[in-house]
Amino acid sequence: MRLIHPENLEYLAVGAAVLGTGGGGDPYIGKLMAIQAIRQYGPVKLIGVDELDDDALVVPSAMMGAPTVMVEKLPSGEEIIQAFESLQDYLGRKIDATVSIEAGGLNSTTPFSVAARMGIPLVDADGMGRAFPEIQMVTCTLHGISATPMSLADEKGNAALINTINNRWTERLARSITVDMGATAMIALYTMSGKQVKEAMVPGTLSLAETIGRAISEARAKHHDPIAAVRKLTNGFEVFRGKIADVQRRTVAGFARGEAAFQGTGEYEGSRMTLQFQNEHLVAIQDGKIVVSVPDLITVLDAETGEPITTEGLRYGFRVVVIGMPCTPKWRTPEALALVGPRYFGYDIDYVPVEERYGQASRPQ
Amino acid sequence: MRLIHPENLEYLAVGAAVLGTGGGGDPYIGKLMAIQAIRQYGPVKLIGVDELDDDALVVPSAMMGAPTVMVEKLPSGEEIIQAFESLQDYLGRKIDATVSIEAGGLNSTTPFSVAARMGIPLVDADGMGRAFPEIQMVTCTLHGISATPMSLADEKGNAALINTINNRWTERLARSITVDMGATAMIALYTMSGKQVKEAMVPGTLSLAETIGRAISEARAKHHDPIAAVRKLTNGFEVFRGKIADVQRRTVAGFARGEAAFQGTGEYEGSRMTLQFQNEHLVAIQDGKIVVSVPDLITVLDAETGEPITTEGLRYGFRVVVIGMPCTPKWRTPEALALVGPRYFGYDIDYVPVEERYGQASRPQ
Repeated sequence: MRLIHPENLEYLAVGAAVLGTGGGGDPYIGKLMAIQAIRQYGPVKLIGVDELDDDALVVPSAMMGAPTVMVEKLPSGEEIIQAFESLQDYLGRKIDATVSIEAGGLNSTTPFSVAARMGIPLVDADGMGRAFPEIQMVTCTLHGISATPMSLADEKGNAALINTINNRWTERLARSITVDMGATAMIALYTMSGKQVKEAMVPGTLSLAETIGRAISEARAKHHDPIAAVRKLTNGFEVFRGKIADVQRRTVAGFARGEAAFQGTGEYEGSRMTLQFQNEHLVAIQDGKIVVSVPDLITVLDAETGEPITTEGLRYGFRVVVIGMPCTPKWRTPEALALVGPRYFGYDIDYVPVEERYGQASRPQ
Repeated sequence: MRLIHPENLEYLAVGAAVLGTGGGGDPYIGKLMAIQAIRQYGPVKLIGVDELDDDALVVPSAMMGAPTVMVEKLPSGEEIIQAFESLQDYLGRKIDATVSIEAGGLNSTTPFSVAARMGIPLVDADGMGRAFPEIQMVTCTLHGISATPMSLADEKGNAALINTINNRWTERLARSITVDMGATAMIALYTMSGKQVKEAMVPGTLSLAETIGRAISEARAKHHDPIAAVRKLTNGFEVFRGKIADVQRRTVAGFARGEAAFQGTGEYEGSRMTLQFQNEHLVAIQDGKIVVSVPDLITVLDAETGEPITTEGLRYGFRVVVIGMPCTPKWRTPEALALVGPRYFGYDIDYVPVEERYGQASRPQ
């Protein structure tokens, strides 16, 4: 167990945005919300999965919706408490801890608001080891854990509690409700026992995020290469380097969908890369060929500062590096690939792990 | 109090379809469901609003969605019980009685299934004195009664419970959920005390429906005019007589929307009438002019048998009579007209009560 203070969150939100692969919300907003809650209610206890009792009641908390809208519609913090408490009432038992459902600038820090306000510990884990756009896309689904009962709340005071026959149905109903609520909603779902958290979730995600964020900051301070620091911590590869040439983005059916095109510079001169995204980057296409795909992580970093750039932050002319990072092994089984692999998202290709394509040659030292 | 047996339902469902103004579901399906429940669980106690204790807990039960889809997707009866019981669990108190939310072939009889299976009485009343397409369109809204907590369930086993800031928001969220559930859902909502039922609902609707249905049947048996019988019981007017020339219908955003055109016969020869509907008939347009509008009732009857024809039952060539009937006085205040008057539905006209336009001249004897 360790206490998380506002200064930890500076790093954590940035590192989580690296793992957020373009989605998962804006780290600046996420950080502000969590810092505000900690200033008001005191530091948050971050506990390892091993510190959880097997029969503890753990409920992840998150923000759902299009990150493009999240930027404009800053939650007050009240609605996530409403979502969390109404699920607690439904369960009829005190929730012992909360946890992040995904790594991402906003959704890694949303649970800090809950933990601080509710006075409960936050578990150092997440359900993806990255961010994904749909509710059923968590390692919990692979372990047969139901997303429902799921609670949703908006900033106006509307609330819903749903029970569905499977996690795909949860996504469907919750997405419609979220769209109605104004394209974003605060949610509590995937009720688990401590034992289930240990088996089904990805441990250590928040600490890894903090380590990544700190490494970027320190590399910059020491005039080292922050991108090399990120690659080292994530076993990642440089996939492309260039300038943002074009970004197309639209908010459709509760998602931010679109693509970003990059014009190569340096050794990539004359080459072109396109990233297609649904909240998160799905595929990296170099000169017409998919070179990295889900479930591996694709992240855009500022070429100079190493800061992650989310899809809604992509702007014409930015000089960036695109990195590909291996996902957790949990996502590499046939069952997992059916849930989050390229074919699910409509790409008729087999998944090739990023390290197979980029080999040892380009591995960071 | 009186017991309702299957034979009562034959009349009740038909009469309710007259009051259903083209919507409210198919009376044949409604009748079958209720009869099945009564055969299995015994007759239903129908009680007058005056027989309710002021502090009784009363919850209306209904089917929500596009009647066009209801015809194809017959509910099993289990899902309405699921919706009802999950609301009861949420309220933490036994529900004492159920009631119809609207008059309509299906929704007048849906609560019979609930009453029979749950062993509770059914209150002889409804929330409209007719059928309307949207959730907030009940006299309860005029009395400040909240539609939520509202429970929804589908035939697959999905369920939702929502709490909203007002009844328009209930409509919005519940409509999306219903669309996801396959365009229909079983619902329980508008929790009321017995006192609120007495103040806010339209009393005697089910008995009136049964009386109308019986009158149609008896008039036919005695070779009397069944349409005159309906007009007499509803203070209605013959608005048009002709053949169905064209029906356009589409299921959009959870509603059956469209219009039906009629070619005049007899004294209406050379004239044309169009009914526009959103589940229920909204306006009757004769030769380009709106002659009857919501909240007054517009119903199409078979010219020969007097049987009501719902919008999904309209077929080219049918010979029909269109009747206009005055709505309950509750719908004629400025506040009520803002909720269910022609302008709400996008018609830029003032509401003219049907009896003002058709006067005493054409009143039935």
